[in-house]
Amino acid sequence: MADIRKFVVIVAGGKGVRMGGSVPKQFLPLLNMPLLCHSVLAFAHAIPGIKIILVAPTDQLDSTQTILKSYVGQLDVTIVAGGETRFHSVQNGLKMIEGKGVVFIHDAVRPLVSDKLIYRCYEQAMAFGSAIPSIPVTESLRMVDDDGTARALDREKVRIMQTPQTFLTDIIIPAFNQPYSPLFTDEASVAEAAGAKIHLVEGDKDNIKITTPGDMIIADTLIKAAI
Amino acid sequence: MADIRKFVVIVAGGKGVRMGGSVPKQFLPLLNMPLLCHSVLAFAHAIPGIKIILVAPTDQLDSTQTILKSYVGQLDVTIVAGGETRFHSVQNGLKMIEGKGVVFIHDAVRPLVSDKLIYRCYEQAMAFGSAIPSIPVTESLRMVDDDGTARALDREKVRIMQTPQTFLTDIIIPAFNQPYSPLFTDEASVAEAAGAKIHLVEGDKDNIKITTPGDMIIADTLIKAAI
Repeated sequence: MADIRKFVVIVAGGKGVRMGGSVPKQFLPLLNMPLLCHSVLAFAHAIPGIKIILVAPTDQLDSTQTILKSYVGQLDVTIVAGGETRFHSVQNGLKMIEGKGVVFIHDAVRPLVSDKLIYRCYEQAMAFGSAIPSIPVTESLRMVDDDGTARALDREKVRIMQTPQTFLTDIIIPAFNQPYSPLFTDEASVAEAAGAKIHLVEGDKDNIKITTPGDMIIADTLIKAAI
Repeated sequence: MADIRKFVVIVAGGKGVRMGGSVPKQFLPLLNMPLLCHSVLAFAHAIPGIKIILVAPTDQLDSTQTILKSYVGQLDVTIVAGGETRFHSVQNGLKMIEGKGVVFIHDAVRPLVSDKLIYRCYEQAMAFGSAIPSIPVTESLRMVDDDGTARALDREKVRIMQTPQTFLTDIIIPAFNQPYSPLFTDEASVAEAAGAKIHLVEGDKDNIKITTPGDMIIADTLIKAAI
């Protein structure tokens, strides 16, 4: 894997309103280090030399720089400003890529991403063009229609998407030249709208997305259990 | 609410193969008490005098009796044998109901159900005939089709179903006289197949379903944070 260039766009552009408080959730401490630093270190550790691009909220660029310097000052991280939506944030991040290779696009608020998952995504993206980690659903699901009725979904067929959503740059960079659509909830949906086939790989249940204060407690427990 | 009879069918009929080991997961200890006892106590505490029906694995009836006697010996719990599927287990439990009223059907492996959620389900079932707790999805979802393709689902419209799924006995008992279908993944789907309209109510993210060893760690953390 030495000759292939590797990039990661870590998306920390959100304002994190669901957590309450004024600190965006990607800056909250987990084992005394902000969430986003865990995500940065996870990729730096798994793939030494990977080019790290961090998309930060427009009004938090200075504080992001300060945090990175304090906690992971030895790493070279390119900071770019986020956009209006996740699509625009990722688009800004992808503009910092020079050359061809494989790019991981990762939520800053998934600090528990493992080396194993990163390698799996890398290998499968090399083989299939894309690698989207996903996990099965253990609960019954329903689809609520516009008239308020809720019909059952076949949960055996449903998968929960995670990150890092991983692509060959040749596939994902042209896909982000499309005009924005509100249907773009993740990068797989952007690639798919551009005609790419989506390849799902096995995700990791512990690779949780932190969206509420309860998730912080859970992440703290999981990270301590893993040490 | 004094004149309405209340019943709960707690389903602990599963063999829990996903946890590994030989102890079914509903017997695993959480704060030194088996999971199923937490679920029994939650309902006994929220609604004093509720009739509690516990569906246990056929080959664990004696050990279930012993556990209940040790941990919640002061409570009157009717134990019945589980069936081949969840549908058959619930069917066996419902057979123990005499008279009319409201019945909660609850997973034994959701030990963190709160009083607040139990009351919400009760009130809404009284008003609408059914009350199915549900929570939104924070991650992107895809539906994998038989040909292996995975199309995006509109996650804004998808809800994760929880328990206690709560019904007027007049609605759910006749529904369980239907022949079994593999599409019956929860009680709402059974009621719906019998022509009932499903009423969703707000669930609780902390009301987790314990299916893996990691979930036990999470439940332990959540329960300690709540004390």
